[in-house]
Amino acid sequence: MRMRYKPWADDYLKEHQDIVDIDGTHAKKMGQWFEKTQPIYIEIGSGRGQFITTIAAQHPEINFVAIEREKNVMVNILRDVLDHSITNLKLICNDAVELTEYFNSHEVDRIYLNFSDPWPKRRHTKRRLTYPTFLAIYKEILKGEGEIHFKTDNRGLFAYSLESMSQFGMYFTKINLNLHEEDDEDNIETEYERKFADKGSRIYRMEAKFHGH
Amino acid sequence: MRMRYKPWADDYLKEHQDIVDIDGTHAKKMGQWFEKTQPIYIEIGSGRGQFITTIAAQHPEINFVAIEREKNVMVNILRDVLDHSITNLKLICNDAVELTEYFNSHEVDRIYLNFSDPWPKRRHTKRRLTYPTFLAIYKEILKGEGEIHFKTDNRGLFAYSLESMSQFGMYFTKINLNLHEEDDEDNIETEYERKFADKGSRIYRMEAKFHGH
Ligand SMILES: C[S@@+](CC[C@H](N)C(=O)[O-])C[C@H]1O[C@@H](n2cnc3c(N)ncnc32)[C@H](O)[C@@H]1O
Ligand SMILES: C[S@@+](CC[C@H](N)C(=O)[O-])C[C@H]1O[C@@H](n2cnc3c(N)ncnc32)[C@H](O)[C@@H]1O
Repeated sequence: MRMRYKPWADDYLKEHQDIVDIDGTHAKKMGQWFEKTQPIYIEIGSGRGQFITTIAAQHPEINFVAIEREKNVMVNILRDVLDHSITNLKLICNDAVELTEYFNSHEVDRIYLNFSDPWPKRRHTKRRLTYPTFLAIYKEILKGEGEIHFKTDNRGLFAYSLESMSQFGMYFTKINLNLHEEDDEDNIETEYERKFADKGSRIYRMEAKFHGH
Repeated sequence: MRMRYKPWADDYLKEHQDIVDIDGTHAKKMGQWFEKTQPIYIEIGSGRGQFITTIAAQHPEINFVAIEREKNVMVNILRDVLDHSITNLKLICNDAVELTEYFNSHEVDRIYLNFSDPWPKRRHTKRRLTYPTFLAIYKEILKGEGEIHFKTDNRGLFAYSLESMSQFGMYFTKINLNLHEEDDEDNIETEYERKFADKGSRIYRMEAKFHGH
């Protein structure tokens, strides 16, 4: 995600710790942070948050959490949450590897991975958000029937993810190999999705679950 | 597969029962039919056989079996086997549902599905060669480490097959979402593959195995 350095980002996030967790205050208590006890959907690597703020506004019956490690883009999500008084969306400013610090086992209903960094070089495979170490984290925090919803424009990352997830013992309940030519109705576009679709790239999508989980 | 009616097909196949099984003579004895005891690779729905005759000629260390239910196209494979004196390829003229009649449990090393009929209508789902009833047949005849190699131009059939196979407890060891733009080196083209690639269609490919089999 391209971004400008924002010297005020630190202070802005610090001032709004009722919305964004910047230091692990809500370790193992994310679920209790919301006004209402309802299903939890999280997005990993939300960027500027176009997807998560839109879906949160559409679905007040769900509690949403955005995890984004870059403060300079996280401030954009925070601003939208404040501007639109969204109460069912909380933010975690941290790396996805720390997810189990925030959630209890089998607490999360759905994980969104939208246009995750592709890390195309083989020596960077471990950094892909569908590498087995990450899948183990998702399995730990997801409910038995919990789902991962994954979208990308990157053909290599999509193929890799189908391999990695199936090898890990996951199965696919829905796959779109050209989302924008298929059933597009309920699709909520992300910032990267618009950018790549405008360039004529295909968008790939899948929904996945864990076997015998 | 488009084909002309060939009134002589029946007689031609009957005359060459040393190469083609037309009546189940080799039930549970397919493996013993070959000159040498070596790994068995089968192709289901071989059409006119461009793929299977090419690969058989390239790999004398493997025994190949082509299953094709249409006599009018099977005769083309038979003619090629005779013309090129291929000794490591036998033919079964029957429907794939009958596969367990010919092979013993866990006897087969690899199954090729090339450009299987897509059956795009929902009410025809059961006829797709990656529908669970067919996967159960493949699991029965394949060795524990046995593989299914699947190629198609049909996006819907490919997505369906990834869903169906992963739900059945299979995993993918290799996926190509645009084969002809990726590593193409060892690829042996089928008749349909050439036809669709010439029209500019993408070719999809996967290799799959059964979990804990
Ligand atoms: C390519 S952008 C996509 C942004 C957004 N999801 C979209 O579709 O427009 C990926 C984002 O994920 C964040 N990210 C990458 N790896 C992460 C990790 N391990 N933990 C938290 N955030 C991560 C990056 O900082 C970046 O903002
Ligand atoms: C679309 S053609 C593809 C032929 C060839 N594999 C190729 O790639 O050029 C499919 C072939 O599969 C055969 N076929 C379809 N279903 C079958 C079944 N259940 N058992 C045996 N053959 C079948 C058809 O008769 C046809 O020849």
